[in-house]
Amino acid sequence: MATVVLRENGKMREKSLTMDTLNPQVKAVEYAVRGPIVTKAGDIERGLQQGQKHPFTEVIKANIGDSHAMGQKPITFLRQVVALCSFPELLDSSSFPEDAKQRARRILQGCGGQSLGSYSASQGVDCIRQDIAVYIEQRDKGVPADWDNIYLTTGASDGIVSILKMLVSGQGRSRSGVMIPIPQYPLYSAAISEMEAVQINYYLDEDNCWALDINELHRAYQAAKEHCHPRVICIINPGNPTGQVQSKKCIEEVLHFAYEENLFVMSDEVYQDNVYSPDCQFHSFKKVLYEMGPEYFNTVELASFHSTSKGYSGECGFRGGYMEVLNLDLEVKAQLVKLLSVRLCPPVSGQAAMDVIVNPPLPHEPSYLQFHKEKRAVLGALAEKAQMTEQILNTVPGIKCNPVQGAMYAFPRIFIPPRAVEEAMSLGISPDMMYCLRLLEETGICLVPGSGFGQREGTYHFRMTILPTTEKLKVLLEKLRDFHIKFLKEYASLEEPKR
Amino acid sequence: MATVVLRENGKMREKSLTMDTLNPQVKAVEYAVRGPIVTKAGDIERGLQQGQKHPFTEVIKANIGDSHAMGQKPITFLRQVVALCSFPELLDSSSFPEDAKQRARRILQGCGGQSLGSYSASQGVDCIRQDIAVYIEQRDKGVPADWDNIYLTTGASDGIVSILKMLVSGQGRSRSGVMIPIPQYPLYSAAISEMEAVQINYYLDEDNCWALDINELHRAYQAAKEHCHPRVICIINPGNPTGQVQSKKCIEEVLHFAYEENLFVMSDEVYQDNVYSPDCQFHSFKKVLYEMGPEYFNTVELASFHSTSKGYSGECGFRGGYMEVLNLDLEVKAQLVKLLSVRLCPPVSGQAAMDVIVNPPLPHEPSYLQFHKEKRAVLGALAEKAQMTEQILNTVPGIKCNPVQGAMYAFPRIFIPPRAVEEAMSLGISPDMMYCLRLLEETGICLVPGSGFGQREGTYHFRMTILPTTEKLKVLLEKLRDFHIKFLKEYASLEEPKR
Repeated sequence: MATVVLRENGKMREKSLTMDTLNPQVKAVEYAVRGPIVTKAGDIERGLQQGQKHPFTEVIKANIGDSHAMGQKPITFLRQVVALCSFPELLDSSSFPEDAKQRARRILQGCGGQSLGSYSASQGVDCIRQDIAVYIEQRDKGVPADWDNIYLTTGASDGIVSILKMLVSGQGRSRSGVMIPIPQYPLYSAAISEMEAVQINYYLDEDNCWALDINELHRAYQAAKEHCHPRVICIINPGNPTGQVQSKKCIEEVLHFAYEENLFVMSDEVYQDNVYSPDCQFHSFKKVLYEMGPEYFNTVELASFHSTSKGYSGECGFRGGYMEVLNLDLEVKAQLVKLLSVRLCPPVSGQAAMDVIVNPPLPHEPSYLQFHKEKRAVLGALAEKAQMTEQILNTVPGIKCNPVQGAMYAFPRIFIPPRAVEEAMSLGISPDMMYCLRLLEETGICLVPGSGFGQREGTYHFRMTILPTTEKLKVLLEKLRDFHIKFLKEYASLEEPKR
Repeated sequence: MATVVLRENGKMREKSLTMDTLNPQVKAVEYAVRGPIVTKAGDIERGLQQGQKHPFTEVIKANIGDSHAMGQKPITFLRQVVALCSFPELLDSSSFPEDAKQRARRILQGCGGQSLGSYSASQGVDCIRQDIAVYIEQRDKGVPADWDNIYLTTGASDGIVSILKMLVSGQGRSRSGVMIPIPQYPLYSAAISEMEAVQINYYLDEDNCWALDINELHRAYQAAKEHCHPRVICIINPGNPTGQVQSKKCIEEVLHFAYEENLFVMSDEVYQDNVYSPDCQFHSFKKVLYEMGPEYFNTVELASFHSTSKGYSGECGFRGGYMEVLNLDLEVKAQLVKLLSVRLCPPVSGQAAMDVIVNPPLPHEPSYLQFHKEKRAVLGALAEKAQMTEQILNTVPGIKCNPVQGAMYAFPRIFIPPRAVEEAMSLGISPDMMYCLRLLEETGICLVPGSGFGQREGTYHFRMTILPTTEKLKVLLEKLRDFHIKFLKEYASLEEPKR
């Protein structure tokens, strides 16, 4: 392609955009969930299709929370509503239930020209925002929700990036600092890099089921104050990649801390429907804030995020989501709406999908039984797979996995023998990256190295989803066990793992 | 809301996010298409519904290119395919034509788990990218298109912002400069503000049907070189808000200029199907580049953008779009894919809608006749309204409108009497903003002031869409004429407009 030619001015044409002239903030972005391992898995998959030989016949992708790609079926009611909205002629068809038609008619009435093809308001379709407010009030046992505080988003990621963008300012020691858990979901670190904000790591307590320890928050905050201006704390609950579900007491401590230190709170609650441990319960940050009393509820700035992509629906492709933002300064709010208006609106079909999730069939409606049967089946299977994953992983010498209390991932700690660590270092890659690459090449299993999420120095992990079907997940775990034992043997490390 | 309370440390809780601590780049963003006039129009509309009295009974929104909201009907075939993809049970229904089913089956086969609910690859669904490449080859009479260069996007805006993000770097005099037309679509200026790049204005020639004058490009470039590093030139063809269609000669000149000056070319071609003047024809930048010979075609970096939102489909709400990027450095390309991967994927239903636009029914297929009848009806009505708008506006003393050769807007120049200009200045608003506000208050017509798009100093304009139905558009234009005459009289200005 790169023909070298002389121009009129006698010089060669250079490229305008090279690695040297690329925006350095773009260069700094890392996103392991779709990183080099996943690219390699795609290459291998295409190779298999073309008849290349590998020691396996199939690539199993457990790198990303993509439920439908792993075989989960869509919720019928949700898809009926979206199809009716997309092609309203179907409203006359007798093969669609009345409750789905009623939802679709209501959504269409909220759309310009009654069409999904119109732009919605920048904050989203009014009646969908109203439905979301009603849903939040019910979820939070009566804590008031104002639909003026609701913003539809393009998946949760878009909302998270928009709020972070508002909060980043200053230079040098007054640069905004963003507190994020380690391990974290790499959207956070990627957005922080891109915006040149300061990443403030607070470490979750692996020895205590990845709990958030308030003393660690204080430590991280005090240390960061020396070189930046901490402005915001991000929490992921249930945790990604760590799968823990936060206790009410822990949430109170975080909110009290944010209150005392004037921090903006961003609460990523996209896994709120994915809680499996019978001892655990999802508590929304908003409800806990309310219960702490008006001096908290009326002051702490809190943005919480939800999505169509996770939960029991798993509708990633629709890019639906919303955020609720409390106690935002009124002028700032106008600025947020202005910022969102530049991208015009979130996809309206994703907004429609979000509406079904917050406004499911009621007990007297025709779709109620089937909807709940489908929902229970998805969540029941996930609970079963969460438990199986933890159990099997913990039978492997040199692997230690915390309970998968919620979300869709296990994030086990793996022992990597010192000689393997040395080898990885000499190759210039992280030891868990080398581990995952070899796992992929030898077994076809695609996981994400822990280094892509962050981990305490000298510890190694991987993230795997629990989304393959039960049978496939069992195969995956057994292959993983055999690989790990072989890997340990190969590096002739007979010493016991350190924990 | 803002209860003031004392915290443990004895200090009041301050807000973390105020106008003082807000990201100054966010503050700098302006987006007039959804600016204060539109907010006010929404307030008036709600007031009317609640029985408030106004000198009109209806707000007519001609501020935004939102076809369906103005009554345009969706293309049946497109919606059939999207509905089939959304609810594949319909593939068994005899009420859908076979060609729509065939398209839907093909798209679903390209989706993980054959579901629209799976994430696609970051660049989009493979088979849709292949269809787009075939479409581009046909459009450009055989100029080769490689689907590896195609990226699905969330509307065109998302692609434009992504490419700009790659190109912004440097500080002070080496800061990236972005050449944009004036008047421009304010997404460009908003993105440039947000990224703190340097905006380089080149003025379109209003006296010459808003043509792009190559001498003006040279002038703008040379002047900008003194204080920044010009990296990229943006062109909108057909023009938004100016409606001109660029000649092949003009495009050649721009490409030659970009070639000589090492500029990256961004060609916004979302109105490529919206050409009305019989004397005009759409020429893609890519085709012209190809015809200039391999020394151009194999070197100039060119990103061109398309969308589901405009053309004859007008599907804004689906947020579908694509970009084709030529001659990108291979390492930079990997960086682009990485950057896009953080937002996971564009909405898959929008990708499906895009597929229908590039892969419409063929002559032997059952939906062919209806599809083309619908397409012709939309484009025919737009052509008629484009002509009518120009004609009626040019009958008004003090209004001068260039031919609406393409796109969906008129951008007439309006004479504002000196005393009205003085009054606006004393109110601290731009004269055309005052004009549009009064127009809205007195007639219910919602337009966007020219100052939101940029214009030569001392000239005033507004942008209006040609999207209302023919009858409503006629009413709008007549009301506008009466308002303008009254406005001129009121300011007792009998002098002739200056041009």
